[in-house]
Amino acid sequence: MERIVYVNGAYVPESEAKVSIFDRGFLFADAVYEVTSVLDGKLIDNAGHLARLERSCRELGIKMPTTAEQLTSIQQTLIEKNHLVEGGIYLQLTRGNEGDRDFSYQDAIEPTLVLFTQAKQLVDSPKVKHGIKVISFGDIRWKRRDIKTTSLLPACLAKHAAHAAGADDVWLIEDGYVTEGGSSNAYIVTQEGTLVTRPLSHDILHGITRAALMKLVQDTGVAIEERLFTIEEAMQAKEAFISSATTFVWPVVAIDDQPVGDGQPGSIALQLRDIYIQTARAHS
Amino acid sequence: MERIVYVNGAYVPESEAKVSIFDRGFLFADAVYEVTSVLDGKLIDNAGHLARLERSCRELGIKMPTTAEQLTSIQQTLIEKNHLVEGGIYLQLTRGNEGDRDFSYQDAIEPTLVLFTQAKQLVDSPKVKHGIKVISFGDIRWKRRDIKTTSLLPACLAKHAAHAAGADDVWLIEDGYVTEGGSSNAYIVTQEGTLVTRPLSHDILHGITRAALMKLVQDTGVAIEERLFTIEEAMQAKEAFISSATTFVWPVVAIDDQPVGDGQPGSIALQLRDIYIQTARAHS
Repeated sequence: MERIVYVNGAYVPESEAKVSIFDRGFLFADAVYEVTSVLDGKLIDNAGHLARLERSCRELGIKMPTTAEQLTSIQQTLIEKNHLVEGGIYLQLTRGNEGDRDFSYQDAIEPTLVLFTQAKQLVDSPKVKHGIKVISFGDIRWKRRDIKTTSLLPACLAKHAAHAAGADDVWLIEDGYVTEGGSSNAYIVTQEGTLVTRPLSHDILHGITRAALMKLVQDTGVAIEERLFTIEEAMQAKEAFISSATTFVWPVVAIDDQPVGDGQPGSIALQLRDIYIQTARAHS
Repeated sequence: MERIVYVNGAYVPESEAKVSIFDRGFLFADAVYEVTSVLDGKLIDNAGHLARLERSCRELGIKMPTTAEQLTSIQQTLIEKNHLVEGGIYLQLTRGNEGDRDFSYQDAIEPTLVLFTQAKQLVDSPKVKHGIKVISFGDIRWKRRDIKTTSLLPACLAKHAAHAAGADDVWLIEDGYVTEGGSSNAYIVTQEGTLVTRPLSHDILHGITRAALMKLVQDTGVAIEERLFTIEEAMQAKEAFISSATTFVWPVVAIDDQPVGDGQPGSIALQLRDIYIQTARAHS
């Protein structure tokens, strides 16, 4: 059975899911997106994702086409139509289509809304058991990484380079410091047991999973420092890990071919992952 | 009559010109483009544009779908089908569509090719007679502006801000120096009559019109300095102007509401524009 996807008000088979070549999402990457994970057929942290979508739109002057409640209803319809139990729902909103190509835009144009499901094993991922290997990679992205836009070519190139190097992902470096992963937030645990992650700014995405983890950590007694760290500090750390909507938490076991800690998934990373999944399941 | 556009091998009415929502051009801005101007129904500097397209593809590992000769044949067919006398042809090439969303990509996927015409008055533009006003604006784009990708949201936002401020365009500033215009290269003429423009690097687009102008300037006796300049130096200049495929040369008469020179289009800008158009017409 073909996947059923949503395009501007219609539920259609994926082979028929198309947008105009004049859509500003296609011509200018004038678009924002969100990915909400699905566990047991339920949306995880969706309120946070839709709130961030609204923020992205506000920052760019893109019109929200509908309410958060209506977006959730579309997401739930897609889960049902595709019998999705575990995976994610991708949502993309473009500024719209004015029928020709012009950098300039009117403030009132109707946005284009696209959603589709992706079935994926999130809980039983082999990346959890073995951890992932990352390489350091120059962060050449634009300066507003807090806005979740579809200007993702640098991330695609970085991940391609990681795979070519036999690694799973990148940790991006700017001015000597780690900004984030290829599509995730980055964390280390120091030899003293302190969890360190970069503070929120325009330099990194304001991860919804990051926000949830920051709250959950407080119950574990693990100390948190939100500060910059270098790739060298990360290589000397006890643990390293990433978080994102569809990975939850994945341990990082090697950076530039050097093992992190004992080269095995770290205990704090695995503990946080378990608590996150338990909490998500309990509250979804 | 509807415009006829080209999408992946087919000539279709623009209302039917669509791409899959899974195209990487739509999801990731994983795409490059070129705009070739058309004068008297003929392509201007097209060899340069197609050479730059090949370079952009090479830098990103995007497959060229066809030869430059075949691309030119498509362009000429579109000129004929749309009776285009003056304007431009837009060409966009995306990495393609693997049927789902994944940052990673295979090296062998088939690219998506889209072309369409835009009728515009290029020679008799009111912007030439009156000049354009620009505002200075922070350059927050990614670090490979020499690759002509569709990651154009920062340019859209900058131009929107310029229009909101009652100006026509922006001059982008990085580390105190002008990089380029919103979608053009930037030039000043000093009080001593020297033409100054930023040297080629990863910081700016390697303008095809810029390259043509640099050659033509040599016949005029005007001295050229390729070096960085600040917005303050530009405001004290005798002249300022921009170049791009579809503007050729447009004089800049005000920067941040301060007149440049006597506030009128500069004579060297207008002379270069005339020579460029004459040469283009003679050689196309």
